[in-house]
Amino acid sequence: MDLSSFSSIFLLFLFAFTLAEVGSVPTYFPGIYQSSLKKNGKTVKPKIPFRSHYFPQVLDHFTFQPKSYKIFYQKYLINSQYWHKGAPIFVYTGNEGDIDWFADNTGFMLDIAPKFHALLVFIEHRFYGESMPFGKHSYRSAKTLGYLNSQQALADYAVLIRSLKHNLSSEASPVVVFGGSYGGMLAAWFRLKYPHIAIGALASSAPILQFDDITPWSSFYDAVSQDYRDVSLNCYEVIKGSWAELNSISASDEEGLSELSRDFRACKKVSTIYSVRDWLWEAFVYTAMVNYPTEANFMMPLPAYPVEKMCKIIDGFSPGATKLSRAFAAASLYYNYSQTEKCFKLEDETDAHGLHGWNWQACTEMVMPMVVSNESMFPPSSFSYKEYVDDCVKQYGVMPRPHWITTEFGGTRIEQVLKRFGGNIIFSNGLQDPWSRGSVLKNISSSIVALVTEKGAHHADLRSATRKDPDWLVNQRKQEVEIIQKWISEYNLESL
Amino acid sequence: MDLSSFSSIFLLFLFAFTLAEVGSVPTYFPGIYQSSLKKNGKTVKPKIPFRSHYFPQVLDHFTFQPKSYKIFYQKYLINSQYWHKGAPIFVYTGNEGDIDWFADNTGFMLDIAPKFHALLVFIEHRFYGESMPFGKHSYRSAKTLGYLNSQQALADYAVLIRSLKHNLSSEASPVVVFGGSYGGMLAAWFRLKYPHIAIGALASSAPILQFDDITPWSSFYDAVSQDYRDVSLNCYEVIKGSWAELNSISASDEEGLSELSRDFRACKKVSTIYSVRDWLWEAFVYTAMVNYPTEANFMMPLPAYPVEKMCKIIDGFSPGATKLSRAFAAASLYYNYSQTEKCFKLEDETDAHGLHGWNWQACTEMVMPMVVSNESMFPPSSFSYKEYVDDCVKQYGVMPRPHWITTEFGGTRIEQVLKRFGGNIIFSNGLQDPWSRGSVLKNISSSIVALVTEKGAHHADLRSATRKDPDWLVNQRKQEVEIIQKWISEYNLESL
Repeated sequence: MDLSSFSSIFLLFLFAFTLAEVGSVPTYFPGIYQSSLKKNGKTVKPKIPFRSHYFPQVLDHFTFQPKSYKIFYQKYLINSQYWHKGAPIFVYTGNEGDIDWFADNTGFMLDIAPKFHALLVFIEHRFYGESMPFGKHSYRSAKTLGYLNSQQALADYAVLIRSLKHNLSSEASPVVVFGGSYGGMLAAWFRLKYPHIAIGALASSAPILQFDDITPWSSFYDAVSQDYRDVSLNCYEVIKGSWAELNSISASDEEGLSELSRDFRACKKVSTIYSVRDWLWEAFVYTAMVNYPTEANFMMPLPAYPVEKMCKIIDGFSPGATKLSRAFAAASLYYNYSQTEKCFKLEDETDAHGLHGWNWQACTEMVMPMVVSNESMFPPSSFSYKEYVDDCVKQYGVMPRPHWITTEFGGTRIEQVLKRFGGNIIFSNGLQDPWSRGSVLKNISSSIVALVTEKGAHHADLRSATRKDPDWLVNQRKQEVEIIQKWISEYNLESL
Repeated sequence: MDLSSFSSIFLLFLFAFTLAEVGSVPTYFPGIYQSSLKKNGKTVKPKIPFRSHYFPQVLDHFTFQPKSYKIFYQKYLINSQYWHKGAPIFVYTGNEGDIDWFADNTGFMLDIAPKFHALLVFIEHRFYGESMPFGKHSYRSAKTLGYLNSQQALADYAVLIRSLKHNLSSEASPVVVFGGSYGGMLAAWFRLKYPHIAIGALASSAPILQFDDITPWSSFYDAVSQDYRDVSLNCYEVIKGSWAELNSISASDEEGLSELSRDFRACKKVSTIYSVRDWLWEAFVYTAMVNYPTEANFMMPLPAYPVEKMCKIIDGFSPGATKLSRAFAAASLYYNYSQTEKCFKLEDETDAHGLHGWNWQACTEMVMPMVVSNESMFPPSSFSYKEYVDDCVKQYGVMPRPHWITTEFGGTRIEQVLKRFGGNIIFSNGLQDPWSRGSVLKNISSSIVALVTEKGAHHADLRSATRKDPDWLVNQRKQEVEIIQKWISEYNLESL
């Protein structure tokens, strides 16, 4: 089986399955995140203690054509309740989605703001949320989308921060950038490319090494599988075996599809088994990513240690149950922990026409090749760069630049390159998170450090503290605060 | 008098004089450099031991529109006679002109190549020399010129170097970048932005601090004046007094202009005194820049220590001579040291329509405000940003981005920013060179160091060694070699 996966950074997690044998066309998962903000079709804004602002931003920082100067309004959020002039500014470098949602899920910054008297700023990434350079036409074609990329985003942040400091008459305030996932990559890169603007970066769950051949292509799905196997070998084996049961239903077997739809409580009869496969796949991957030690509602409302709970469901079945029915029951935890779903939209095509920003990014610069190895609990698959390219050309009319990220930001031999270069970056990771495999897991120098927790998940450290947080998480955050405090002290000392 | 100066990095040194009182329009000096390659209207290529190559380069690295993918052919020069696989690669990051000419004037790299077994690569800057993205239409308008800027140039270098190493199967070769003047700025910025590609940079006479208000705006012309005053107070005073004599000729005084033209041996009668002023001005500024300790032919053929020679001419006149006639005689040294000119083209408009690449760069990102103080030997003038903008809008239809360079590359409080960040950069400067005032003149850290010579001029260190080189120059180059050797040793040690 050949599978080329457009693996996105978590939120807008997209797969392009090209199953050569069955001739199915690529399936793009719609961004989970977009749907997570919607209830009954209506967008629900989280309640956050921030004020929205809009910054007149330049469309193209790197060319000087007349149209490069076009202005669009970039949204950013401010909380100044703890701040006084000269005190630090903590900036979240927004990722692929609505900035309100990231603010809502990055309570850590709000938690530590009083201690630092910090101003909090969350900047929305261009082409996401309300920050649309061409309004509703922003996603029309490669002509408009062409301006959606990480370098332009970083330059946006640089220009905005500089202007903000100027307007606040607080040019001397040290700026620390924070980010999780793709936002964490941006935070780390921002510190590396704009050291004159940010004195340090906390890059949480930032897989900056998931490009080219730096990290083994199988590592992501191996890591997901390990999460389940570590909990229960049976659980891993049941999931691993469920795909064959699913594949036994042939494409023309209408009765089989009807039965499958019934078994999976589909709101509408599914047209292909691949919808079901993707639906399961998504549940297992995302649950591994958000395998938090406390109840949380990041992608979906989930209990503490949801992988454990899923495996408990699988292991609790009577011996006669099919593997597929157990996999379904486990996945239901992900989709319906809150017990509000009467049926499942297995072929939900919400947002199918439009706002797949990450899909565009994956088709241009964010090429992260992935394969599924035989050791994984997912159906083995390889990566075909040719098919990847064909899909991108078909969808957008542009070719990916698969080596661009490592050319622009590096990554190869990062320990050697950054050993004597740069500084003040924390790479925090939880090993439950499959993205951790593509991140920095070892200290590079005395001030480019890795904080790794065995039981942590996708930027768990950035979430608000809760009373139920385990010691290792409390401790990880404490270390982060201490390191940031050190950066600021050094900065203040050297500013005298 | 109000004067807004488009001060370019040396080669294409452009002034925009806006003399409000007399209502004259801005005058842009054509690039000296272009004319320096021409003899009797024909372009003369220097003889250099390099082979020309052409790399298929991407037009726009920072957008992904279909047209961003357009390929142009970027020229680069290779000398591999001392190299073997795995040995270092020394790259010159080309500046605003034909790369052959920089190769011809950067003999230092050729001199030290055998010691390092280094591969030498000189990469031409986009939109200069033969590296024209839109062929002969490259300079047509802001639509094409929009792609001419420093970030795109740096990305070109990154892509080309990476590809070159790959094609040579020598990925592990350490790369050191070299550059002088604007090329030195690019070398320093390249090391800062692409540490994963270059292990170090020798940035000679690189005024990376000549932006915004980092360096006093008067420093450049104060430095030029100091060069002359240090040689002879009388020389300085004669030049300083000559402008008033010139100004005494009114615009309508046809006889006065005829006489002036005769006195200045003009090939054609001048139409305004400002041509004469600019002609003198250029001679004094460039001679200060290239005040080398040995005979050289960089901008023009000149004797050793040409400022001294000019002042000797001025000081040698009989007391009755006018200041203007002495200034003319001094300037003649610059324009006619080789004694080949029968008359002077004071209003030479060579290249008036076209290839003013630096002019474009000055109108977009390279905004280096300059004023002439009362202490200078030039007519005092202020800087009007409004007029600067008006000129740029008039000429190209685009607004400058005066804070962009410091936003993208920093510069403000550089000692503090780079004290704990980066490394392996040599900023070499000679204090005779007025551009040195906008460069880094003090060590920032143990590996970001300043090598300053009191008697050095514009990247004197990058020129070929000669038998007549003074000890301080020999010593400066020796230090550079030792430092580069240290970078390479460290790199090799850490690669084991």
